[in-house]
Amino acid sequence: MKDTPIFSGVIAPVVTPFGEDGSPDLDRFVEHCEWLLADGCTGLAPFGTTSEGNSIGVDERMELLEELVDAEIDPKKLMPGTGSCAVSDAIILAEHAVELGCGGVLMLPPFYYKNPSEEGLFRFFAEVIEEVADDALKVYLYHIPPIAQVGFSLPLIERLRKEFPNTVVGLKDSSGDWANTKAILDAFPGFEVFPGSEVFLLDGLRNGAAGCISATANVSAKAIRNVYDHWQGPDADRLQGEITALRKAIQAYPLIPVIKALIAHYREDPTWADLRPPFTELPADEVAKAVKLLADTHGFKLDFQAAA
Amino acid sequence: MKDTPIFSGVIAPVVTPFGEDGSPDLDRFVEHCEWLLADGCTGLAPFGTTSEGNSIGVDERMELLEELVDAEIDPKKLMPGTGSCAVSDAIILAEHAVELGCGGVLMLPPFYYKNPSEEGLFRFFAEVIEEVADDALKVYLYHIPPIAQVGFSLPLIERLRKEFPNTVVGLKDSSGDWANTKAILDAFPGFEVFPGSEVFLLDGLRNGAAGCISATANVSAKAIRNVYDHWQGPDADRLQGEITALRKAIQAYPLIPVIKALIAHYREDPTWADLRPPFTELPADEVAKAVKLLADTHGFKLDFQAAA
Repeated sequence: MKDTPIFSGVIAPVVTPFGEDGSPDLDRFVEHCEWLLADGCTGLAPFGTTSEGNSIGVDERMELLEELVDAEIDPKKLMPGTGSCAVSDAIILAEHAVELGCGGVLMLPPFYYKNPSEEGLFRFFAEVIEEVADDALKVYLYHIPPIAQVGFSLPLIERLRKEFPNTVVGLKDSSGDWANTKAILDAFPGFEVFPGSEVFLLDGLRNGAAGCISATANVSAKAIRNVYDHWQGPDADRLQGEITALRKAIQAYPLIPVIKALIAHYREDPTWADLRPPFTELPADEVAKAVKLLADTHGFKLDFQAAA
Repeated sequence: MKDTPIFSGVIAPVVTPFGEDGSPDLDRFVEHCEWLLADGCTGLAPFGTTSEGNSIGVDERMELLEELVDAEIDPKKLMPGTGSCAVSDAIILAEHAVELGCGGVLMLPPFYYKNPSEEGLFRFFAEVIEEVADDALKVYLYHIPPIAQVGFSLPLIERLRKEFPNTVVGLKDSSGDWANTKAILDAFPGFEVFPGSEVFLLDGLRNGAAGCISATANVSAKAIRNVYDHWQGPDADRLQGEITALRKAIQAYPLIPVIKALIAHYREDPTWADLRPPFTELPADEVAKAVKLLADTHGFKLDFQAAA
């Protein structure tokens, strides 16, 4: 790890609550973000995949982000997803994040056209960085080939780092492939690499990762943070074993629906479970089963009073 | 075919010209659209895949569309692409198209999350249609699984047609799979089905298709229109053979780059060849080869004076 990382630790790709009318619910959003920081998150990545980020419009994303800053959440802890298939919208979102003082941005490659050339992807990022033209812009590449289909090869990462050493500072690896994460960590010392799941947190930290950016940090940040804080301690492997087991139990269900359903259950606020299409809510009997299994087997519960 | 189709014939998914600064070039755009209508297109589908539609921002798409209407192109001939991964943006774009009086909209399914449920996709379209809440909205489903990955099953098409019989009126099938097009034509008589390539035009028309919506209509509308106009005549198979051969010769090159390069060449306007990332321009020697091969083998040339 670098001496002065920009981001490190446990970052949640914040789930986005919707109101009765289907639009993003600003108050619930701020409340959840504040709770996540109290629960152990060191940073927040709104508008990631878990956030249904691409299901939220350009204007909606900007309004939500402004709401967080207005609520006095430290913008340095924010790494919003600013990717778009349209380079023009990616520029608008990145500029907006920089104006608000965000510590970084998490940027997907353009993901509509498949099998783009490395040159084409390089140009996309170059155009955003050159148009924003601000040293305060810190770009984290968002590698999630299982969903975006389009990802980052090692040569592309190397070229972007070489061309924009002060801007392209890190990467979230949601490939789910530890060999790929390890290859990136080995190739680029000092690059802020975040595995996309806490399953790889301890292995990552031992190989120079900066932390993790994980969907399940929305509901288990405290335990993940505990591994991050004690990764060099004698209990590290046991603690990692616990968060790995919990993650696997949660992701046995459709991940985004179950995370929102768990929050809805423990907040006693059914609207929290709402999703934008194409997602659909987890059926009530599945939610009940998940709540019971996670509680019985992992002692899992969410305590919104304690942290707040 | 229905007695009173809303769209029929040859529709071009209009390529989008960019200016020196990378933003969409309104004047060149209008000029190309007017030329296409003069060259034989019966309709225009701006912001399709060939248009780099998803590479163009929400505000940019609306500005371009307004420009066409301001230029007195009949909005009834316009079927803009209004799809978005975000249902909120899809609503904004569809409402805007209806306000401008567009004859229809061509709507992608949300394409970020892979393997969505049929129920989730149904809800996406239902939400757009119910929010726009205007009988003037005519939705053409855009099925292009090779690129979007997410597509329309027959049961989903049936459910959407049943629930919104006056709104969900047609489909563009860019699967490239004639068996799929045929299955849709057989299942839904009266549905306005457009194969996504003129290769399937004659077979389509003989089985009830409304016409075709094809990338290469940007540079060969006249010949495609000739097949459409004479599909029941004695020369139909020969004419179809010619447009099939030309299409195959053109698509031997990267399709969007070569179409823009051909327009740039014959307009003697190099900027026309520009693409947004992740696309890159076809190298000059490839363009020269394509121009020569198409001219020698197919007598291909573009005449911007004659049609204008």
